[in-house]
Amino acid sequence: MTLEDHEAVEVVGSVAPRDVMFVCEHASNHFPDEFGDLGLSDDAKTSHVAWDPGALALTKELARRFEATYVAGAVSRLLYDCNRPPEAESAIPTRSEIFEIPGNEGLDTAARTARVEQIYKPFRAATEQAMAMVHPKALVTVHSFTPVFHGKPRAVEIGILHDRDTRLADAMLTAMKGAEFNVQRNEPYGPEHGVTHSLKTYALPSKTPNVMLEVRNDLLREPEAIAKMADTIADALRAGLASLAAENAQRGAQ
Amino acid sequence: MTLEDHEAVEVVGSVAPRDVMFVCEHASNHFPDEFGDLGLSDDAKTSHVAWDPGALALTKELARRFEATYVAGAVSRLLYDCNRPPEAESAIPTRSEIFEIPGNEGLDTAARTARVEQIYKPFRAATEQAMAMVHPKALVTVHSFTPVFHGKPRAVEIGILHDRDTRLADAMLTAMKGAEFNVQRNEPYGPEHGVTHSLKTYALPSKTPNVMLEVRNDLLREPEAIAKMADTIADALRAGLASLAAENAQRGAQ
Repeated sequence: MTLEDHEAVEVVGSVAPRDVMFVCEHASNHFPDEFGDLGLSDDAKTSHVAWDPGALALTKELARRFEATYVAGAVSRLLYDCNRPPEAESAIPTRSEIFEIPGNEGLDTAARTARVEQIYKPFRAATEQAMAMVHPKALVTVHSFTPVFHGKPRAVEIGILHDRDTRLADAMLTAMKGAEFNVQRNEPYGPEHGVTHSLKTYALPSKTPNVMLEVRNDLLREPEAIAKMADTIADALRAGLASLAAENAQRGAQ
Repeated sequence: MTLEDHEAVEVVGSVAPRDVMFVCEHASNHFPDEFGDLGLSDDAKTSHVAWDPGALALTKELARRFEATYVAGAVSRLLYDCNRPPEAESAIPTRSEIFEIPGNEGLDTAARTARVEQIYKPFRAATEQAMAMVHPKALVTVHSFTPVFHGKPRAVEIGILHDRDTRLADAMLTAMKGAEFNVQRNEPYGPEHGVTHSLKTYALPSKTPNVMLEVRNDLLREPEAIAKMADTIADALRAGLASLAAENAQRGAQ
């Protein structure tokens, strides 16, 4: 009796879950008329405090490489930081690095609620729905950071950030050993800075492997540089996913 | 304050679950060497008791119309009827309509277990895995029936069968009012005949809308007839899915 499984049943068509879904919370420095520009200078509105410059371009390049779906914020994080829960002070900051945010000072409850209802909740609902529908093997959030913070240059070029679930971050860090970039774990931010809200909200409940990427934004200024960074990260992500799949297969075989 | 949801977040790429997955339990009249041909005559082996003639061809046409995945049995249902649980007598029948099945008489526990292990379990595992991965909005099982049963002609041409979840069957029956075919609810079989095992096993636990189709096999003899039947059923299925989606949207809006 040696009937093989494949002789008893035939499955035709795709049954593969999609590999990965991307989220780019700080994609945009758009200030819709409803909220105004918060009294910000043009410098502030185009600086890293209003958005993550280059992050959306990198997200698009990554999404193309994986034929993946992505969710991107469409208004400035100074109106509402979609990578923060409503109860966090930093969700609607009154100060960000060296910039004051006048329009966020002394916000009353109604104005604060309007930001939550009109920015955070639609973002969260869209991301949760996308996760449920795409059913990805991994969630990757894509951020960029400024090369000089409070006057101090940062050496790290790529941060691989995680919260409690370290699986994908571990595997990507292993894959990136010897990379030509300065790659660090939980730098320049980590879970202690409250930056893993999206990972905790969209990935941990379903035990979906996840990672948050932070890329220094001076490496995301030209299309060629962005493409190179996307290749570097895509290689590491593919290696990381393969490593997790191999571990799962091994666990299944034991 | 009239910021629209789509201004706060942008989702790019497919987040749509696939519409439907098909299952064709009785697709094959193959008798692998491991089990032999059960002492059946050639007539029996090619008759409707060994498989559902035309059902796989109809399944393929439907799958093509919906770009859908399908799962098909790859051995005769006389070896093991994958639309029956192991505890059912009819899973390994000793008689089917007018045919005796000598090879299924007096089967010992080891032989019965081998059928379950080598036919039912792989079929069930593949179908469950496919459901989890495809995440379809509906499950449709595809069967055919003989036009003459125990010498009596059957008038019904298309049976729309259901178990406890009647949603998709109701919607398809509504859509098929005035069809040129004789369409009946739970004919020529119904849940009382134990034929809804797949629906109960693969669709009810996840509350996935589901239906079992029974098509009279004299309508599935020529490619043109099969294509016409696939068009008829695809139209009703699309209408049924649209009707369920509209009901869900209405419920969501209330």
